[in-house]
Amino acid sequence: MSLIRRASPLAALMLTLSAAAPLPAAAAPALTPAVLTEARALRERARSDDTAYELVRSLTTEVGPRLAGTPGDAAAVAWAIRTLKSLGFQNVRAEPVTVPRWVRGEARAEIVAPWPQPLVATSLGGSVGTPVGGIEAEVVPITTFDDLKSMPRERVEGRIVFFTFRMERSRDGAGYGKAAEARGRGAAEAAKLGAVGMVMRSAGTSTSRTPHTGAQRWSDGIPPIPAMALSNPDADLLEQQLASGKPVRLRLASTARWDGEAESANVVGEIPGEGLADEIVLLGAHLDSWDLGTGAHDDATGVGIITAAVKLAAEARPRPKRTLRVVFFANEEFGLSGARAYAAAHANAIERHVLGMESDLGAFQPFGLTARVASDRLPLVRAMQSVVEPLGIEYLGTEASGGADLGSLRELGMPVLDIKTDAAPYFDLHHTANDTFDKVDPQLVRVNVAAFAAIAYLAAQAEGGFGRLPAVARLVGPASAR
Amino acid sequence: MSLIRRASPLAALMLTLSAAAPLPAAAAPALTPAVLTEARALRERARSDDTAYELVRSLTTEVGPRLAGTPGDAAAVAWAIRTLKSLGFQNVRAEPVTVPRWVRGEARAEIVAPWPQPLVATSLGGSVGTPVGGIEAEVVPITTFDDLKSMPRERVEGRIVFFTFRMERSRDGAGYGKAAEARGRGAAEAAKLGAVGMVMRSAGTSTSRTPHTGAQRWSDGIPPIPAMALSNPDADLLEQQLASGKPVRLRLASTARWDGEAESANVVGEIPGEGLADEIVLLGAHLDSWDLGTGAHDDATGVGIITAAVKLAAEARPRPKRTLRVVFFANEEFGLSGARAYAAAHANAIERHVLGMESDLGAFQPFGLTARVASDRLPLVRAMQSVVEPLGIEYLGTEASGGADLGSLRELGMPVLDIKTDAAPYFDLHHTANDTFDKVDPQLVRVNVAAFAAIAYLAAQAEGGFGRLPAVARLVGPASAR
Repeated sequence: MSLIRRASPLAALMLTLSAAAPLPAAAAPALTPAVLTEARALRERARSDDTAYELVRSLTTEVGPRLAGTPGDAAAVAWAIRTLKSLGFQNVRAEPVTVPRWVRGEARAEIVAPWPQPLVATSLGGSVGTPVGGIEAEVVPITTFDDLKSMPRERVEGRIVFFTFRMERSRDGAGYGKAAEARGRGAAEAAKLGAVGMVMRSAGTSTSRTPHTGAQRWSDGIPPIPAMALSNPDADLLEQQLASGKPVRLRLASTARWDGEAESANVVGEIPGEGLADEIVLLGAHLDSWDLGTGAHDDATGVGIITAAVKLAAEARPRPKRTLRVVFFANEEFGLSGARAYAAAHANAIERHVLGMESDLGAFQPFGLTARVASDRLPLVRAMQSVVEPLGIEYLGTEASGGADLGSLRELGMPVLDIKTDAAPYFDLHHTANDTFDKVDPQLVRVNVAAFAAIAYLAAQAEGGFGRLPAVARLVGPASAR
Repeated sequence: MSLIRRASPLAALMLTLSAAAPLPAAAAPALTPAVLTEARALRERARSDDTAYELVRSLTTEVGPRLAGTPGDAAAVAWAIRTLKSLGFQNVRAEPVTVPRWVRGEARAEIVAPWPQPLVATSLGGSVGTPVGGIEAEVVPITTFDDLKSMPRERVEGRIVFFTFRMERSRDGAGYGKAAEARGRGAAEAAKLGAVGMVMRSAGTSTSRTPHTGAQRWSDGIPPIPAMALSNPDADLLEQQLASGKPVRLRLASTARWDGEAESANVVGEIPGEGLADEIVLLGAHLDSWDLGTGAHDDATGVGIITAAVKLAAEARPRPKRTLRVVFFANEEFGLSGARAYAAAHANAIERHVLGMESDLGAFQPFGLTARVASDRLPLVRAMQSVVEPLGIEYLGTEASGGADLGSLRELGMPVLDIKTDAAPYFDLHHTANDTFDKVDPQLVRVNVAAFAAIAYLAAQAEGGFGRLPAVARLVGPASAR
């Protein structure tokens, strides 16, 4: 995933509304006993099924890194179409998406004074390169944006700003938002004050020398400056040298550059329902990845989990009434191009999207289910949650976001559920070279498939659906490239 | 450290001899009650002293990587002299050592077929580079040297041999010897069969994409081939592709090269004893490091631990009778140049070296003391061990090696003690980019200082010393560059 969305004012309002009515936890009549029994059996079958794990192995081994617009991205689209067809999905298709193309090139960072040492760094996604030969300047450490704002221009001008904010590990990934804020707009804010470069402590919790990349944003009119992330140990080293009180100078060199646009695709496949085939339960993940690792937890596991979940749910009896659709979104990481394209292409069918769910936090232990549905459908959600409770999944309220790729659809009125998973190990790997297949635990993949399969099956059967959310006026929501 | 020495036939003989006599654990008369009491107090004082930790911080921050023959190596020698003098050591001096100079350059490895992917690799120490543009060949996986030996030449000729042996984590680091064997002579053995290149799974237990470097050896007359280590995740990926049964081709490119010799130095400092000043208790560590990290656990912690231990022991009362000498050896990593030079320079004073100890396994939890001393002095060792037992240190027998840098002195007859520490976390970091200061736990540094300080103090006071070991005939032992 590229970001954790903050709760919108709309979300806060809905939270208030739904909190006002006590919710019965008993099974709702929308689900028959036969369906509930089959959902439990499906959950157990999924716990001994390695379809998803094998898909993760295949995507990371046979495709690997797949940054939007690269040959790996094109190979991933071909892989996805081939894979969905081989698993019996129908209406498998690539829906075109135009993506920006950015080339990482090489990044070098070194301390040149007071004590010369090389640093391990990587360019932030979308960064410009340096002039040939690099740039050299004194470092100004900044902990918060407020510090930067209160700093006189002459302290920053001509210097390299170093954002020192350190993300802490937590189950809900709470620290990521603030860390990613520096990544998203730190360079632009520093450039406004005349900085010639920006480095940041990685927006992640890895203690390894594997820096965290990710997208940054630029406001119009500010000439861009080169921006890099240092691994946590390298940020520590830079802080140690700064602690000496001596002026610290850095040299940065980067060949990062933009390279126009490319064609990519959202890949869609489905298992048509029987009885309510026009109604869609959408399961999403993203097919692209950053280029440093092989995108194992971000988001090959999501691709594997939703694919296996739908395949297993389709085999359940009674058959799913609604159509189960998987969407592998293009270019989530670098601007949500696929999410926007899907929303635009399917806006006229938005009412047929009964529910959406996304898997984009890796394959770690699930602990909760949140919902954003019509408030009178919450009893149905509670009944669904009771089926996955043996997996360790509690009902955790109405703050579901749907995830980055479903945000636009949610804002058009599509209800969403989130299966919350342990984000602490995820942010040890996320957007680094260490996001590789060896870090994927098959047991945790199965648990996630079990949760998605059971919930998707129940959603495909539930009489009356999940209602609609109030549509935000815009067709495409405010999710800008970050 | 660069290697774990296997027990020699001599060691096996000594083990047999000493095992024959049951050892009393009671205090030996060689240590007075006043000395034992002070040693316990010294142990406790050391547990709240951060001299060593601050030395590690200083060396890793103000010098950083210090591969033999580089500017960092020269800076480390200057740092060491400055530091020992500032701490009150006497007779501080640099004793010249000629070291080989090798330049890592850049290493690139990529799978080109069946599924192209980049790999994270680093050249093994001493590897030659590739021709400009690199080499490309099919991969032949090899698990053991026996597999290689039984392989027909036509299976290897013109190919890149991939050593797949995986080191397991263990407290005693037992798997390292076999892993390092592939590193040491794998390329040479493959070259004998006509291989054009060699890659190996890193000789370490890191799950991070930080490959493990280390020295390799060449037999005369075999034209060298480029040799690289892949990180464990990258070795996994290569194995995944090989598991497809399709031919796997690699491209390797490296600018590694040899660059003659350079002058470095062993740095020596001491606290003269009172009463037996001619007798030396030697504490060793190595000043050089590999270049990928900052040599924090390998071996800045050793430098810090022995320095702080001697400083604290010198402050104990009654004063140490024997001279406490620290030796920071040059170029342990790439041929033990400093160990050889010290042994040669001090051979005529070998009888005055009463005991040697080395710290070169990082700063992790100590769990044992082993001794190689005259067998009638083992009761003294047991009495010394009882003082450090509260630190978690058991008496573990007579298999002490003295460590890599003291091997030559031991073979000349100097008795040695080893303080055994947990090697499992060490080999997660050893010889990788992750061997950095942030991985150093100040509490564990203190525990190690407490152990070294108490043992060194007791060794400096013990009446009668530790006897002599049977001298091996050669002046310089069989420790070849590996």
